[in-house]
Amino acid sequence: MHVLITGAAGFLGQRLIAALLDRGRLDGQALTRLTLIDPAAPALESLSNDAIDVECRDLDIAEPGALNASLGERPDVIFHLAAVVSAEAEADLDLGMTVNFDATRALLEGCRRYALSATRLVMTSSVAVYGGELPEVLDDMTALTPQSSYGTQKAMCELLISDYSRRGLIDGRVLRLPTIMIRPGRPNAAASSFASSILREPLGGETAICPVSTELEMFVMSPGKVVAALIHGAEVSGDDFGASRSVMLPGLTVSVAEMLEALRRHGGEQALARVEHHHNKDIETIVASWPARFRTDKAKRLGFAGDDDFREIVESHLRERAASM
Amino acid sequence: MHVLITGAAGFLGQRLIAALLDRGRLDGQALTRLTLIDPAAPALESLSNDAIDVECRDLDIAEPGALNASLGERPDVIFHLAAVVSAEAEADLDLGMTVNFDATRALLEGCRRYALSATRLVMTSSVAVYGGELPEVLDDMTALTPQSSYGTQKAMCELLISDYSRRGLIDGRVLRLPTIMIRPGRPNAAASSFASSILREPLGGETAICPVSTELEMFVMSPGKVVAALIHGAEVSGDDFGASRSVMLPGLTVSVAEMLEALRRHGGEQALARVEHHHNKDIETIVASWPARFRTDKAKRLGFAGDDDFREIVESHLRERAASM
Ligand SMILES: NC(=O)c1ccc[n+]([C@@H]2O[C@H](COP(=O)([O-])OP(=O)(O)OC[C@H]3O[C@@H](n4cnc5c(N)ncnc54)[C@H](O)[C@@H]3O)[C@@H](O)[C@H]2O)c1
Ligand SMILES: NC(=O)c1ccc[n+]([C@@H]2O[C@H](COP(=O)([O-])OP(=O)(O)OC[C@H]3O[C@@H](n4cnc5c(N)ncnc54)[C@H](O)[C@@H]3O)[C@@H](O)[C@H]2O)c1
Repeated sequence: MHVLITGAAGFLGQRLIAALLDRGRLDGQALTRLTLIDPAAPALESLSNDAIDVECRDLDIAEPGALNASLGERPDVIFHLAAVVSAEAEADLDLGMTVNFDATRALLEGCRRYALSATRLVMTSSVAVYGGELPEVLDDMTALTPQSSYGTQKAMCELLISDYSRRGLIDGRVLRLPTIMIRPGRPNAAASSFASSILREPLGGETAICPVSTELEMFVMSPGKVVAALIHGAEVSGDDFGASRSVMLPGLTVSVAEMLEALRRHGGEQALARVEHHHNKDIETIVASWPARFRTDKAKRLGFAGDDDFREIVESHLRERAASM
Repeated sequence: MHVLITGAAGFLGQRLIAALLDRGRLDGQALTRLTLIDPAAPALESLSNDAIDVECRDLDIAEPGALNASLGERPDVIFHLAAVVSAEAEADLDLGMTVNFDATRALLEGCRRYALSATRLVMTSSVAVYGGELPEVLDDMTALTPQSSYGTQKAMCELLISDYSRRGLIDGRVLRLPTIMIRPGRPNAAASSFASSILREPLGGETAICPVSTELEMFVMSPGKVVAALIHGAEVSGDDFGASRSVMLPGLTVSVAEMLEALRRHGGEQALARVEHHHNKDIETIVASWPARFRTDKAKRLGFAGDDDFREIVESHLRERAASM
């Protein structure tokens, strides 16, 4: 089983690699080869494994033909994670179109050229494909009306992957990811950053800022469940997807108040007191525009699993933190 | 007012040109210039008008830079009708991607390059953007899950036009057209061909074949109302479209039985007797997969109008036929 990963050096890529090396198997077969593609590939070079041939390639997938040699080696499964993030794609339309859309199209064309019709291609999409005036509860038949160039580019890739799959040129699957929390690390410029921060920092003895009202709801999933979903995405039957190869993953709807209650439960009143409430209208507007309630029937039918409750999300973060110390 | 039309020599293009020349105005201003683009442009050369400067350009919009000179002349309104049809796009993925998607993207990029942010771009999409397992009644928030490459390419253009409009690079509008009937001419290879044929031929004294069961429903609009919708699409305010620049036009849901009843009403029993029922499973399957019931609230809110009833569709066909004799 030869697995290729684009964007392998990223947040999800590194966790996916760790999970794959740990399992040593995919879809009932032994993992024998990993091809890791990322301009930041050197970050991966310390990886090594006795049973698995790991190769890192320092490639920009937006360069013409960049993937040809790798696709010519006929990988069995491709995890296509490389992307520029939302803020970057909004600031630079050409960059977003080139990396998020054209490079995905080139990957599909490469699969077509090398007749990789049985290769399973797992791509990550996002809730950013939704936007505008949405119903109270979204479902698998809710229209994609993205309000960002990033969401537009992801939605276009979704359509193309469904069409290439329908034509039998590739066996594609697209997973729409909820907001991932609790992310390790430090607060960053992402509008969602506060959500991880208001748990992570106080649990670690530091203060954090909550810029939104506590009634605000979000649709979230832990990093561990996202990685498990990526692996399940490569193992489930593509035919079972039906008319579209896209699926919204079964996140958890949780309000900021519930997040803070979980913080109190795990860290006590002193942890809760480390959260300062400084309202930021811009952040509230952006985050409130993201859909928070979904009926994810298709994901459940296909066997994708989310977190059972928010307590599980906090506990997995604490376990991970303890393990890394 | 300078209007540019791509695919000007096609079925809708020629009717749109006639309607524009007849009106002499668009959006409250006098029409002064028409730029007509089509590789079949010679078909248009007989057009002439005292008040309006009509120019035909024999161009393939899929050629790099083909539209540059025309866009440099800063048209106020663009009707983008050029496309390869469903069967062609299915038979040749590259052709469909190049003409239906890449050329549309190049048109948008051309508008961006010449800073045509106020230019109104009206594009035609299709019910083919819908497919698979659909709800009984579709609405403006039904997901696009196309089951053809043509539908996929149209849906991708829709997303791009909404994003370019949101970014203020263009003022786009996309009209999803119902099945157009009654088309003049002869039966052709299109799966929908029978629908026009079972009215047109018997009303003209000839026989026609009905290949589907009479309970089958279709979502239809007369050529006249489609052309009126294109013109309205250029006149309505783009901002009023909301989160997406696409709109499903308000077609009429009509069963084959109702079509035949209209035939009897207008042509009598002898006309009805000219329809032979020879069931064709393939045609029935294709046509039955097209959605027939829509709640087109958005179109109505924006002031788009359809046909009041099927009788009106038949009568407009008869008027047109009489005028062309
Ligand atoms: N993390 C989230 O909350 C989230 C949510 C929804 C969707 N996603 C999607 O999941 C995927 C992975 O996300 P992540 O959080 O790991 O992102 P990340 O930014 O941490 O990693 C992306 C990786 O892609 C690489 N990359 C970027 N451009 C490239 C190019 N031209 N060629 C090759 N590699 C390139 C980067 O070097 C980076 O290592 C992305 O597709 C992202 O859009 C993530
Ligand atoms: N007629 C329908 O029932 C219907 C339904 C839904 C959508 N539409 C859409 O409406 C539009 C017009 O439809 P129509 O029925 O007039 O089609 P048509 O085939 O009669 O006309 C299309 C025109 O586009 C031109 N064209 C094709 N490729 C071109 C290229 N590369 N460069 C320049 N011109 C090119 C052709 O020469 C032709 O004259 C199309 O976008 C079509 O997809 C039509």
